[in-house]
Amino acid sequence: MQSFEIDKTDLLRIKTALDGDDAELQEVLKDYHASEIAILFEKLPQEAKERIINTLSTEIASEVISEMTEESHPEDLLISLHPEKRSDIVEEMDYDVATDIISQLDEQDQQEILEDIDQEDATSIRALLSYHEDTAGGLMNSEVICVNINLDKKGALDEIIRQSEEMEEFYTIYVVDDHKTLQGIVSIKDIIKARSEAKVRDLVQADFVYVKAELDQEEVAKLISQYNLTTIPVVDDDMKLLGRITVDDIIDVMEAENTEDILKISGVSEDEELSGNWQDAVKSRLPWLIVNLGTAFLAASVIRQFTHVEEELPIIVAYVTIIGGMGGNAATQALAVTVRRISLSDLSDRQTYRTVIKEFLVGLINGGANGLIVLIFAIFYDKNPMLGLVLFLAMTGNLVVAGLTGAGIPLILKRVGIDPAVASSIIITTFTDCIGFLLPLWLASQLLL
Amino acid sequence: MQSFEIDKTDLLRIKTALDGDDAELQEVLKDYHASEIAILFEKLPQEAKERIINTLSTEIASEVISEMTEESHPEDLLISLHPEKRSDIVEEMDYDVATDIISQLDEQDQQEILEDIDQEDATSIRALLSYHEDTAGGLMNSEVICVNINLDKKGALDEIIRQSEEMEEFYTIYVVDDHKTLQGIVSIKDIIKARSEAKVRDLVQADFVYVKAELDQEEVAKLISQYNLTTIPVVDDDMKLLGRITVDDIIDVMEAENTEDILKISGVSEDEELSGNWQDAVKSRLPWLIVNLGTAFLAASVIRQFTHVEEELPIIVAYVTIIGGMGGNAATQALAVTVRRISLSDLSDRQTYRTVIKEFLVGLINGGANGLIVLIFAIFYDKNPMLGLVLFLAMTGNLVVAGLTGAGIPLILKRVGIDPAVASSIIITTFTDCIGFLLPLWLASQLLL
Repeated sequence: MQSFEIDKTDLLRIKTALDGDDAELQEVLKDYHASEIAILFEKLPQEAKERIINTLSTEIASEVISEMTEESHPEDLLISLHPEKRSDIVEEMDYDVATDIISQLDEQDQQEILEDIDQEDATSIRALLSYHEDTAGGLMNSEVICVNINLDKKGALDEIIRQSEEMEEFYTIYVVDDHKTLQGIVSIKDIIKARSEAKVRDLVQADFVYVKAELDQEEVAKLISQYNLTTIPVVDDDMKLLGRITVDDIIDVMEAENTEDILKISGVSEDEELSGNWQDAVKSRLPWLIVNLGTAFLAASVIRQFTHVEEELPIIVAYVTIIGGMGGNAATQALAVTVRRISLSDLSDRQTYRTVIKEFLVGLINGGANGLIVLIFAIFYDKNPMLGLVLFLAMTGNLVVAGLTGAGIPLILKRVGIDPAVASSIIITTFTDCIGFLLPLWLASQLLL
Repeated sequence: MQSFEIDKTDLLRIKTALDGDDAELQEVLKDYHASEIAILFEKLPQEAKERIINTLSTEIASEVISEMTEESHPEDLLISLHPEKRSDIVEEMDYDVATDIISQLDEQDQQEILEDIDQEDATSIRALLSYHEDTAGGLMNSEVICVNINLDKKGALDEIIRQSEEMEEFYTIYVVDDHKTLQGIVSIKDIIKARSEAKVRDLVQADFVYVKAELDQEEVAKLISQYNLTTIPVVDDDMKLLGRITVDDIIDVMEAENTEDILKISGVSEDEELSGNWQDAVKSRLPWLIVNLGTAFLAASVIRQFTHVEEELPIIVAYVTIIGGMGGNAATQALAVTVRRISLSDLSDRQTYRTVIKEFLVGLINGGANGLIVLIFAIFYDKNPMLGLVLFLAMTGNLVVAGLTGAGIPLILKRVGIDPAVASSIIITTFTDCIGFLLPLWLASQLLL
């Protein structure tokens, strides 16, 4: 099986069916999984999407809207539907998904949707809307299977079957006491296997990993990945069970965090939508470029100080650009390794120290090796061994600076609590440009003129 | 709860306990989860790790070794253990984890381990070893819960309980016919809820997503994420069930693929270990830097062609470095967005076309805006409006080239089947350096001299 790609044939088929009557459309839609229809939606105009949603059963329609990516704006589709259809769809959704979609609407539209739906659902969604979207609370689903610790096998099984009626799938069963305080977890397997007189109390695993609702979603992702969990319970300060986060929610968080990292390192604003239009791309990138223009002027002002060197040794200009550029590249290498390492695990003091020493040594060796090549070139092509020596020293020095800043700046940012990924290659390159221009020109003015 | 970080206190506690007797050590180890001991292992010498593993129960020891990261080389620890202890530990492991660890050893050590363990386990692990580690087969676990489609409720439940004895957790139950051909899936919930005379045949969901053993792991990850699956069955060409892949295995794949992307874009060899030593870092990065040194010479040779311009207009050198550098940064922005977008989903022809047009427009606007700033600077600081015009045109031109190469090169690579992430900023920057040096110098020679 291959992952589903939007194919012209599929799109054409849907478009042709849209020209026909509802029965025809329904027949064609039967061939597609809800998540496939969600992908096709990316290519269809608003009216077509509304018509399809109205043709589908509430169950499938709700799945399709749940599967739509944030960038295809499921909230716009939802709000445009007939209030009755809309309420049916929202009531069918998982609370966490419904909350994510509704949270994108303005206050008034949110209220309109919530007033129309079943009151119990509305209360749950309102509670979820109160958590910040980047925290465990914003990520959790409040629908959990949860049994009282005093139940016996039969009572627990009945309760599980009753509660699971509304859920598509469940993994872990949570055990609470009479005050709804979380006591542990129990697996359905252990309940089935237990003797009929067994109580939940005898089967509960009291040693489990949980998170508070305020915990940042990145920390939740680290915990789930570190302890290989399928699901993690979310509690309030009194250990009352609020909901659970499942591993598939975490996959979306990880994808988003990774996209953010790669964009920030490259000097793109973290909220640029990958498939966004050019106007948004300009808004996201131009500020960084203008900041960089300022720093480039700074670097270029170094060159302005040494016009006397350039006049006497015009060839040095070509070499200066090489040394500046090489420093930028080496710094980007050190930066990528360090940022990725920090984002996967937290570094101890000793690890931090060793990372900086490592990048210093890497800079020294790589700078020396590249410096040697430039030295040889200057001797044989420009017939100027002293120039070669100047370039060798400048290249080595600049690559050491590249290693130290590429690793050091994200590490320092992490210490002071700033996201290390904002130490984009654009900022680090400023250092290596300045040093890369200054070193050869200053050494030349000292040793050659 | 916070994710576990290696703390000096924990390390000191373990080290002190290592000086004491086994009972003392056991007492201290009780306070740590298996995955926490695996993290502490990163900081402990080989003898200490062996001693701890020998002190722990087989069950916990097996979990600890399973949780060790690839970079802490669990295979070295495993092979150093007493053969009897080692066999007990391997037999306790999930087949897919055992296979991953054993596959890192040389042929002779692999045979030694496999000859010592239970024959059924050895056969399963040998079968898994035959799949390439980057495919569905290399990722799957062959331990699945699987029932015959002709069983009734009681028979199915008995079978599930019997098969689940050896498994820590299970999600989906697979249904096969008498020829072991996969017929569908069934949830434990549906079996429990079914009337006692129901057959598995009545409960099976015949519409499910599966993969062939040869499918690339990245495709498996896309499927699991696209269809929000917890687990996916792996089959051979005759639809015989071989095993299953769970979502937590996919998290590790995603982490690894993301690390690869970020490193490749930054010109670091994809297999550099993030916490590796400086010698390996030099080996991984120096080749890229030397390639770049060649391309930098190419770019610098452009400058050598225009020494007459520099002599008559020395100030242009400072501006040339600004325009070259800005082009590199804009190209890195376009590259990051495009590479990340490609790695999350496949682009249609139309999307490809629109991406290139978008980056062209972004380059035009961002280039024009930055060109304007430089133009103003040249007018007021250098009192040279014609120089300003030259710089404006050169900046705009270079940022258009940056957008087109930053988006175009990864898109072309993808089309011809090369990983687009290797279009590292180092390679893209060569284009913008050459054009960034050529444009202002050539325009100046035409318009100013």
